[in-house]
Amino acid sequence: MTFAAIDSSLLGPLFATDAMRAVFSDESRLAAMLKAEAALARAGAKHGLAPKALAVALEKMTPADFDLGLLGVKTADAGVVAIPFVKAVEAKLPEKLRPHFHHGTTSQDIVDTSNALLMRRALDLIEADLAAITAGLAQLARTHRRAPQVGRSYGQHAAPITFGFAVAGWLSGIAEAANDYARVRRLALAASLGGPVGTLAALGEKGPAVAEDFAAELGLETTAIAWHTSRNRIAATGAWLAILVGSLAKIATDVVHLSSTEVGEVSEPHAAGRGGSSAMPHKRNPVSSTVILAAHAASSGLAGTLIASMAAAGQRSAGAWHAEWHALPQLFGLASGALREARALAEGLVVDASRMRANLDLTKGLLFSDAVAAVLAPGLGRDAAHRLVAEAADSVRETGIPLGSALEEKPEIPAALRNAVTAAFDLTPALDAGAAMTDRALAAFKSNPKKR
Amino acid sequence: MTFAAIDSSLLGPLFATDAMRAVFSDESRLAAMLKAEAALARAGAKHGLAPKALAVALEKMTPADFDLGLLGVKTADAGVVAIPFVKAVEAKLPEKLRPHFHHGTTSQDIVDTSNALLMRRALDLIEADLAAITAGLAQLARTHRRAPQVGRSYGQHAAPITFGFAVAGWLSGIAEAANDYARVRRLALAASLGGPVGTLAALGEKGPAVAEDFAAELGLETTAIAWHTSRNRIAATGAWLAILVGSLAKIATDVVHLSSTEVGEVSEPHAAGRGGSSAMPHKRNPVSSTVILAAHAASSGLAGTLIASMAAAGQRSAGAWHAEWHALPQLFGLASGALREARALAEGLVVDASRMRANLDLTKGLLFSDAVAAVLAPGLGRDAAHRLVAEAADSVRETGIPLGSALEEKPEIPAALRNAVTAAFDLTPALDAGAAMTDRALAAFKSNPKKR
Amino acid sequence: MTFAAIDSSLLGPLFATDAMRAVFSDESRLAAMLKAEAALARAGAKHGLAPKALAVALEKMTPADFDLGLLGVKTADAGVVAIPFVKAVEAKLPEKLRPHFHHGTTSQDIVDTSNALLMRRALDLIEADLAAITAGLAQLARTHRRAPQVGRSYGQHAAPITFGFAVAGWLSGIAEAANDYARVRRLALAASLGGPVGTLAALGEKGPAVAEDFAAELGLETTAIAWHTSRNRIAATGAWLAILVGSLAKIATDVVHLSSTEVGEVSEPHAAGRGGSSAMPHKRNPVSSTVILAAHAASSGLAGTLIASMAAAGQRSAGAWHAEWHALPQLFGLASGALREARALAEGLVVDASRMRANLDLTKGLLFSDAVAAVLAPGLGRDAAHRLVAEAADSVRETGIPLGSALEEKPEIPAALRNAVTAAFDLTPALDAGAAMTDRALAAFKSNPKKR
Amino acid sequence: MTFAAIDSSLLGPLFATDAMRAVFSDESRLAAMLKAEAALARAGAKHGLAPKALAVALEKMTPADFDLGLLGVKTADAGVVAIPFVKAVEAKLPEKLRPHFHHGTTSQDIVDTSNALLMRRALDLIEADLAAITAGLAQLARTHRRAPQVGRSYGQHAAPITFGFAVAGWLSGIAEAANDYARVRRLALAASLGGPVGTLAALGEKGPAVAEDFAAELGLETTAIAWHTSRNRIAATGAWLAILVGSLAKIATDVVHLSSTEVGEVSEPHAAGRGGSSAMPHKRNPVSSTVILAAHAASSGLAGTLIASMAAAGQRSAGAWHAEWHALPQLFGLASGALREARALAEGLVVDASRMRANLDLTKGLLFSDAVAAVLAPGLGRDAAHRLVAEAADSVRETGIPLGSALEEKPEIPAALRNAVTAAFDLTPALDAGAAMTDRALAAFKSNPKKR
Repeated sequence: MTFAAIDSSLLGPLFATDAMRAVFSDESRLAAMLKAEAALARAGAKHGLAPKALAVALEKMTPADFDLGLLGVKTADAGVVAIPFVKAVEAKLPEKLRPHFHHGTTSQDIVDTSNALLMRRALDLIEADLAAITAGLAQLARTHRRAPQVGRSYGQHAAPITFGFAVAGWLSGIAEAANDYARVRRLALAASLGGPVGTLAALGEKGPAVAEDFAAELGLETTAIAWHTSRNRIAATGAWLAILVGSLAKIATDVVHLSSTEVGEVSEPHAAGRGGSSAMPHKRNPVSSTVILAAHAASSGLAGTLIASMAAAGQRSAGAWHAEWHALPQLFGLASGALREARALAEGLVVDASRMRANLDLTKGLLFSDAVAAVLAPGLGRDAAHRLVAEAADSVRETGIPLGSALEEKPEIPAALRNAVTAAFDLTPALDAGAAMTDRALAAFKSNPKKR
Repeated sequence: MTFAAIDSSLLGPLFATDAMRAVFSDESRLAAMLKAEAALARAGAKHGLAPKALAVALEKMTPADFDLGLLGVKTADAGVVAIPFVKAVEAKLPEKLRPHFHHGTTSQDIVDTSNALLMRRALDLIEADLAAITAGLAQLARTHRRAPQVGRSYGQHAAPITFGFAVAGWLSGIAEAANDYARVRRLALAASLGGPVGTLAALGEKGPAVAEDFAAELGLETTAIAWHTSRNRIAATGAWLAILVGSLAKIATDVVHLSSTEVGEVSEPHAAGRGGSSAMPHKRNPVSSTVILAAHAASSGLAGTLIASMAAAGQRSAGAWHAEWHALPQLFGLASGALREARALAEGLVVDASRMRANLDLTKGLLFSDAVAAVLAPGLGRDAAHRLVAEAADSVRETGIPLGSALEEKPEIPAALRNAVTAAFDLTPALDAGAAMTDRALAAFKSNPKKR
Repeated sequence: MTFAAIDSSLLGPLFATDAMRAVFSDESRLAAMLKAEAALARAGAKHGLAPKALAVALEKMTPADFDLGLLGVKTADAGVVAIPFVKAVEAKLPEKLRPHFHHGTTSQDIVDTSNALLMRRALDLIEADLAAITAGLAQLARTHRRAPQVGRSYGQHAAPITFGFAVAGWLSGIAEAANDYARVRRLALAASLGGPVGTLAALGEKGPAVAEDFAAELGLETTAIAWHTSRNRIAATGAWLAILVGSLAKIATDVVHLSSTEVGEVSEPHAAGRGGSSAMPHKRNPVSSTVILAAHAASSGLAGTLIASMAAAGQRSAGAWHAEWHALPQLFGLASGALREARALAEGLVVDASRMRANLDLTKGLLFSDAVAAVLAPGLGRDAAHRLVAEAADSVRETGIPLGSALEEKPEIPAALRNAVTAAFDLTPALDAGAAMTDRALAAFKSNPKKR
Repeated sequence: MTFAAIDSSLLGPLFATDAMRAVFSDESRLAAMLKAEAALARAGAKHGLAPKALAVALEKMTPADFDLGLLGVKTADAGVVAIPFVKAVEAKLPEKLRPHFHHGTTSQDIVDTSNALLMRRALDLIEADLAAITAGLAQLARTHRRAPQVGRSYGQHAAPITFGFAVAGWLSGIAEAANDYARVRRLALAASLGGPVGTLAALGEKGPAVAEDFAAELGLETTAIAWHTSRNRIAATGAWLAILVGSLAKIATDVVHLSSTEVGEVSEPHAAGRGGSSAMPHKRNPVSSTVILAAHAASSGLAGTLIASMAAAGQRSAGAWHAEWHALPQLFGLASGALREARALAEGLVVDASRMRANLDLTKGLLFSDAVAAVLAPGLGRDAAHRLVAEAADSVRETGIPLGSALEEKPEIPAALRNAVTAAFDLTPALDAGAAMTDRALAAFKSNPKKR
């Protein structure tokens, strides 16, 4: 399966999108490294530090000009990424351009910067999915804003809500992650140009200006100072991705439960051949949710690796930086698959509103015990009211009669309150409240387009 | 030691501050819960949903009115936090106020909201430490902006920097975390008022208005919709704390290395009796760094727990929410100790500038091999220049003579380049570059006060 | 709540047992440190390295002789645990005994060894719970070895099993952890005596013998060589605890689902006042499962911290060792609460066998579609058989008629196979298989008493 | 780079071995799945449940017969691994064999069992590396058993040890992991045959016997009962791998420090072109240690994912199982690279014994302050002795004169003790103690061959 399932030809397509896979392919990585070197050449040329021909020569190179496998073997020998790359590029340059190539910079600059270029494309993909998911959920919430559903806590029926309200809760989680997108994008898309120890000393006084032009050439953020061993931006990007997937996992957790056989309130959008079983022809497994939950289970550990790797020594660390490569692209890969599946859910979740309504009655009125107790409290005293309702609830559980009937047998209830008791079983207030909250969430979502 | 070292009487004072400990004490927690209930009573009264006397009665209660140990035992019995609390408060209220108490709300509202109240105090403490640390580091960077030091990569001498530049790198990491403070504060300080299933149905049409007034009474953020099972804000707060501690761990990693016996370039501020050894009277251990690194090692796992717990089921989860209590306050505790120690370092690090200067010479000029090769390249060709310098470097390593002397013995170097070779050993360009970068970092730090 | 919920007076009793809390109390820790020092004095005396009076004097000391709070403050000042302890003990010794006290050893020896003493008590507690849980589960499996239940995959009804078989699966997970108990106990209960750098040089030739006697005095394992910075045994202990809790979390995950309102097949043992809701009188929340799942969510991160902390520098690390204190005792605390609750489940789970049986019919025979297809395959060909059953299954889903009836309407089914088709709906083979597997698991469990 | 760096053509060779990569390749995975199906066919045939021709037909199939990419696309569509595989195999079988293929089993059986087959090869590779590493370290410890080195705690010189002793510490950590190898191997190499819900009901009474023969055919462990959702063995395997890498990380941590420019006591084995810098020709970076530390940083999070995934629902989980695929093979990949590099260190570490000896003198005798104080204590009293030595130590730090000279100027030292003071500076006792401990560790290692 390759070491990571997401990289496997067999399993990878299930867990990550092709588009995201293309972003982090070796070819793409190599192209980005060439792009970074060319940008450095242009920036250098602007300041008289490199001949203009260097950039031209670099811009002509493509990943196809290199033997990726050989570069990999040499990297293993060298133990330092980018050295074989630098040598290979150099070998393709005219002799006189070679001394100017890679001048003033260091491996980490090229690797970090090319990584930022890849992350830009990766974040574009995520942004598009986020927009689609939030739009889909907003529509779903709107559609079901008054659709009765039972609210569940600890897996137990608690009190009525609307399905729109539940979806609005999903939306608010994703929207929260989306609200933080701009910050993370700014952090993630930073160029790195510091040279061996970060000071760009080899470029003399022109160092800072070249660094700024280098970033500008690539459309990346510039930073006041090298971030070779200040890895906040990487850790923050990873944490955001894990939190984003976490907000999708909230949905998936609910979908797995709501689509379970006994509950049956929703089902994942049906695609031919999807979610079957090799043994059981009748099965329809919640595959999208499975992909999301697996991504979630893997993400928090990967984010933790990035945070742990902030303890980077000196001007370049031995291991902490490299651990990022083990974790960060995987987070993008896992997020891509989770987002794709969440989008499928947001846009195509099959809702069985009548089943939702029917499930509300499973506890035979117990959901309204709280409301009934509230109605009785002023007359009977709070404790007495609670005791009476609790006794009636026990009858419901023991005999299976509805709570309404059980209460009718209670002589302690004054006749004057009988109508109010009956009214307490009315779903309307719960639906009103659920719809109102749904509307609030949708309004908040709409009024806040810039944040996303 | 109690289960967590930071809670231990014996070990806790080393790892967390008394001020932060006070924030998360049981008494403080109980006071915050009372405060939340009183605010709800006031908000309810404003909307005619509760008698004004209720708030008055609640405001008079203090943690001292309750038997904490008994509440704990009852919580273990009930299995649900806040139920024993609600009953205990109710028992102290006049009979007629009882039906109005805790009306419309649920345990999680009170727990989450009181937690926000505690986090506000906790974040205030962190903010003060952050200001002191960044100010201290800025001053330290300024002082040593041209102080020569060797830049190290992979633990090896790489090329000269200035110590001010190294400190500016530390500063930039902390400043990055500080820049994100406002966002996290806004996320963390949200009130929760949703009732059993989040819709506040029991309050009817007035639900949203009461929720907003409830938050306003407490000076907390209000949210469009309940966040009972949308835990982004908790996960994001935890990730931020772990990343903050990570940025301190970068400093601590460097201080442990720089203060090691062989390097000896810095030492932690000396306090009488600090960092000694029970066996070795001459030892002076980097205690502050140790505290920070231990906090860092524990933090990424705790942040991971919070992210993992986002997969919360339905309208209240069975376990995911509760796992937050295991992790979040500890992150504040660990951060408090790490910040205290980082502040001690930022404000009092003992710098041995002469040792820094002396260490630069340990490799006998090899640090300048790159500069020498650059000088020779135009004349000899890049490859020949590199080969020549590499041979000279080998002599340095084998015989111990300085690189300058080894180069003098190389007849391949044209006489016309001899002066340039000598000039290549000049530290000035590295110091200029280091100082310039330091100034850039300090300027960026100063120009950005609002972000912090 | 104190930083860790398990240390809180309010919340702690819910999440950890009093017995485990007592093991890791500061008083208990101090008593263990005194015990370790006394054992060292006895071992030293045996080899003529310490006066016998030293051990006598140390054995008389108790935690009550010390001011814990003051020791904590001094520890924060010293930054090194055990130094204030050593000084405080010394101050209580007669002048002439002082030079012999703590001779040859170092803080870490005393801390690590006293920790092993605490872990012995902690593991005893765990062992007892493990025995009770496995016994309870074995009984539960035996009782329900033929009780029909639906097997669920991906939350969907899959095929019939027996509840005994499901419980046997729970049992096998716990038994697996229990099987590893002896190994972990041996690893965890190792004495440490190495002195400042691990060689016990101060004791001369007698070092190794004293170390062995020291361990023997305490009934602990001795190691060939100091393990100051070889932390496998700590990491392995932590990983085992997390895996143990993980095997409990499997049960809790199932109990939450099986006790959900719609499924209703089990409920947690009912204790008065347990699992209620502050707002909903009819609720009965799965509190035991909640405690277990929260422990599980926190445990994997803590175990990760211990594994990460194996990268300990030199002969004593600055931070990695200390991070263990943040994580290891908490794992014991969390395990204690999770085991207590798992024991309650194992011994008292309320099983609704009739509901289990009834739920099997929810899918109206679809569970047997596989069996039916198998019966039809030889006659119709496999593909045709599958297609036919799938069509019938679609009718079931669309019209709600049972699969048996839908099949009766299929003329393609040869009359000769009709009886076999009917027989395919027989539960007996599934019950036989479930019971047989249950018996196998119980036999394996019984035959393997030594491993536990 | 592909999502995981270890899967990248560019970076992978640095971080994982080709041999391990081959184990987890898609072709290898597919071959193992075919092998598992063939074994099932043979076992079935033995019990009259399948025609013998089925196994023959399956044994002839190879990965080359399948279109991996197409299978991957179909897996993404189906959402369930193994279904496209089952269909593809079926399509290649003669019509009459098809109904017997995959009979009684389920996707997870084939995936879990084929995974065990891969792990067997993976563990063989690890076992060989472990043997080589421990042998190399044992030899290294033996060679340097009396080689003087300074012991370091908190990065500070503490007291003399021998380098052999330090290496013996490394050895003891790895040996501890190796001692656990047999247990983990037994856990990891378990066959799975349970069918859709684990009871093997479709095979009737013959189920258990077929399961045992299935395992025997493959040379795998059999289990009493299906472990579809009892994932201890997977979690334990992952934890062991992470702990193993952790024990290597202890070595790497030390090598990075000991090979740092100022310390210079060891260097990684020199291979041409290894550890260079794209900018600094004189650099020799500790590449092996870097690879190990990066693997370590990534491993604890991955192990945590496996432990967290133990909370698997019902008879098949939606996500927890799949998360294993994200984590487990990567742990093997990371371990393979870390072991390869650790082996290079164990077999080829370059030791500069003279530098070790010279570094001992850096603190000018302060290392012996403890020994001197011990000599003076009986005559002067312990406190006075300590005070006197501490004053002398202050002179050393302030003036740079050796401790011996500083003590000569102390008139408080009686003439009768002068010789003893001089003797206290003798390294011999420390070397004796270091050598004795080294010998103990080597003897323990040798006497315990079976455990490994």
